[in-house]
Amino acid sequence: VSAPGGPRLEAVIEDLEAGFEAHLRDLVAFASIPSVSTDPAYAPDLRRAADWLRARLERAGARAEILETGGHPAVYAETPVVPGAPTLLVYGHYDVQPPDPLQAWLTPPFSPTVREDRLYARGVSDDKGPMLVAVLVAEAYGRAGGLPVNLKFLLEGEEEVGSRHLGALVRRERERLKADVVLSADGAMWRTDLPSLNVASRGSTSLEFTVRGPGKDLHSGRHGGAVHNPLHAIASLVASLHDSSGRVAVRGFYDRVRELSGPERDAIRAIPFDEAAYPASVGASAAYGEAGYSTLERQWTRPTLELNGLWGGYEGPGGKTVIPSEAHAKVSCRLVPDQDPDEVRALVVAHLRDHLPGGVSLEVSGDKPGARPYAIDPAHPALGVARRVLRDLYGRDPVDVRMGGTVPICEVFRHELGLDTVFFSFSTGDEDFHSPNEFFRLSRFRDGLRAWAMYLDAVGPALGGAS
Amino acid sequence: VSAPGGPRLEAVIEDLEAGFEAHLRDLVAFASIPSVSTDPAYAPDLRRAADWLRARLERAGARAEILETGGHPAVYAETPVVPGAPTLLVYGHYDVQPPDPLQAWLTPPFSPTVREDRLYARGVSDDKGPMLVAVLVAEAYGRAGGLPVNLKFLLEGEEEVGSRHLGALVRRERERLKADVVLSADGAMWRTDLPSLNVASRGSTSLEFTVRGPGKDLHSGRHGGAVHNPLHAIASLVASLHDSSGRVAVRGFYDRVRELSGPERDAIRAIPFDEAAYPASVGASAAYGEAGYSTLERQWTRPTLELNGLWGGYEGPGGKTVIPSEAHAKVSCRLVPDQDPDEVRALVVAHLRDHLPGGVSLEVSGDKPGARPYAIDPAHPALGVARRVLRDLYGRDPVDVRMGGTVPICEVFRHELGLDTVFFSFSTGDEDFHSPNEFFRLSRFRDGLRAWAMYLDAVGPALGGAS
Repeated sequence: VSAPGGPRLEAVIEDLEAGFEAHLRDLVAFASIPSVSTDPAYAPDLRRAADWLRARLERAGARAEILETGGHPAVYAETPVVPGAPTLLVYGHYDVQPPDPLQAWLTPPFSPTVREDRLYARGVSDDKGPMLVAVLVAEAYGRAGGLPVNLKFLLEGEEEVGSRHLGALVRRERERLKADVVLSADGAMWRTDLPSLNVASRGSTSLEFTVRGPGKDLHSGRHGGAVHNPLHAIASLVASLHDSSGRVAVRGFYDRVRELSGPERDAIRAIPFDEAAYPASVGASAAYGEAGYSTLERQWTRPTLELNGLWGGYEGPGGKTVIPSEAHAKVSCRLVPDQDPDEVRALVVAHLRDHLPGGVSLEVSGDKPGARPYAIDPAHPALGVARRVLRDLYGRDPVDVRMGGTVPICEVFRHELGLDTVFFSFSTGDEDFHSPNEFFRLSRFRDGLRAWAMYLDAVGPALGGAS
Repeated sequence: VSAPGGPRLEAVIEDLEAGFEAHLRDLVAFASIPSVSTDPAYAPDLRRAADWLRARLERAGARAEILETGGHPAVYAETPVVPGAPTLLVYGHYDVQPPDPLQAWLTPPFSPTVREDRLYARGVSDDKGPMLVAVLVAEAYGRAGGLPVNLKFLLEGEEEVGSRHLGALVRRERERLKADVVLSADGAMWRTDLPSLNVASRGSTSLEFTVRGPGKDLHSGRHGGAVHNPLHAIASLVASLHDSSGRVAVRGFYDRVRELSGPERDAIRAIPFDEAAYPASVGASAAYGEAGYSTLERQWTRPTLELNGLWGGYEGPGGKTVIPSEAHAKVSCRLVPDQDPDEVRALVVAHLRDHLPGGVSLEVSGDKPGARPYAIDPAHPALGVARRVLRDLYGRDPVDVRMGGTVPICEVFRHELGLDTVFFSFSTGDEDFHSPNEFFRLSRFRDGLRAWAMYLDAVGPALGGAS
């Protein structure tokens, strides 16, 4: 095994640069598969994406197989054993968000298209591109004489639906998943202009509900004023979930929320962030949110309750004089320490029942596992390696940031395997990964390949393996 | 010209009975044309329905033509002149409501299907069936030696979109539309078990609005809590439109509403109506509405503001962690004397602007003409004829009822031609005409044919024409 930073790393980086056009073609092929995990209609495409990934890992020199989960399958792989070297469990996911609204895409979501420095397609940034980086780097090391560490890949197909079968799978496969740390190809970097490392993520819980009024759609001229319109009822229910300042009005919602310490707030305040420019950066007319907190504090350290969908009645062109028989809502909450997903969900359901107006009934559904909030010790040595690689790559120290989003797997890996997770993804938070026109920067794809090569070269000694 | 109730009427009624199967086939053909006026995609079908109707009127012995309106065309026809006899202007509409939600139909909305005593199809009750009655009766009279009165037909294609070009058309054609009274084939009877005559209808006004937040859909994990979610904003706006008892909370909304007199309330109270059974009759769990008013008073004499559609964000299966960039609502109001449609619309818009929360913007659209509320003198002689025909047909006196819905044409005919409108339709209010599985009772189709034959036979003397 050669020394870090030596000729092998040089060779690997040269190899990755030389093969970049082929790597891009691989990503185009992978992102052409519409692996939308939330919609059962796409199940065959999930299977196809898993097969593609398994075959690609085999080509890269790993032993790879499909692991059945009861839901969409996972892909597992191991690179050739390097005795005495530490083991990294590489995590990623091949499933993607739904592409709706379709008409907002400039090019079709599953016809990956390069425009300037960007490859546009659903899932290309979250998480197919960053995940492919790990596979390609392992392959390049193989060609250069072998990896300096042991890699195990666990690539799932249900991240976008709450990793609902991952906990059971990891528990079942506990023995062979043994490792020193999890290296996640998921978990975007915060900004393009500032290297960053994620040290925490918000948890989540979600639900759907339906408000039912009359047994069928009614003529709003004939019956208007004499039955409770489910659209009025659901609007008043939804409106009751927040106070006028944007704070969640569900009783008990904040009971377990740990307030930030002074030094924690100072650390966040020290991060370069243009508070005044934020609304314009997302196209909003003004800042909005819980009073007494900055935008970063709101995004990283405060819990939320957000409607993700709300609908009922006629949506077509023109008018239709109807009182619909039902109205629907989808809700998700983001959680911070020490909130519990099941408890918060129950509080929201209780609120809905307590605030249900007369003349309508309520049905709650969409029961799927929540995720606890997560944090890693900022002094973890595997995080230290990531910090040094980013400094070498970008010429400045990365900042520690938190994630507003949720990666439920952190809690799974900690609970089932006792492992911390280092996020080392080269997608960026502005790449529209839950919106139309998702893209992955080609320059970041290149950076990722180089950075993963450097990371795998340097991590062995940091984790105390033979070098 | 023969005397009322004589052998000619007998012959006409026998002719109509003998030809019933053929009449039903005509209605099936007519109702197979998807003449949905609110959706521009159906424009060619509207034209096709108008052509069908023109040809059918010609076959019935009338001189018929298409009248262009700038929107969907109208069909005009005249039966052979009967000198000295009064003239009735027959009104109807060949356009229909949208068929959504399609999946709720047991048989496709434009594949008319008979089940038991009912013909199921969109528009069959509102208003193609009742309108065809008038055409078929004129035809039968022609075969029996001629009509006892003059008929002019004005059949429009925009009733379901507020009769938006009818006012200009009637003004332009004022000379040839001269008549003694309007006889409307539109305007359903209230119930199947109780013959009734409509003596008033509510007016209407409508609008749509969009609430815009961020410039594009955002990830609700990353941005949740830091921007105003348009779904929260629209819910609070919609919730602000009513107080908790269901009364409209728009300032000035009730200012011009004429309160019912004691005798008016007594008359409504005298009508057989099971107040306690009403919620169950529409499948609702409980009664709901403005305090201090009965269900009939709410439906007939009180103004309303109803949401007809409300939507934004993700509606598909599973979840999508998105903050949508916009949310939408469709609103319609029903008006009573002496509310003014334009004024009420302006009040609602002012309310929306006044109550718009921070961090979002508002766009109001959907500007189409409103309709004033309408009432006819209960002692009008043409209404008296209808009362006698219904008594002969059903063996009991009809009750005077009001319509919760709106027929904007009443105001047009009164204002432009100085004419009152008698509603003489044989559709019934329970025939789901703005819901899935709209139907028209075959027995009512028969009743309508007989009743229109009787009406045309008797109306001449009542209006003072030669007999």
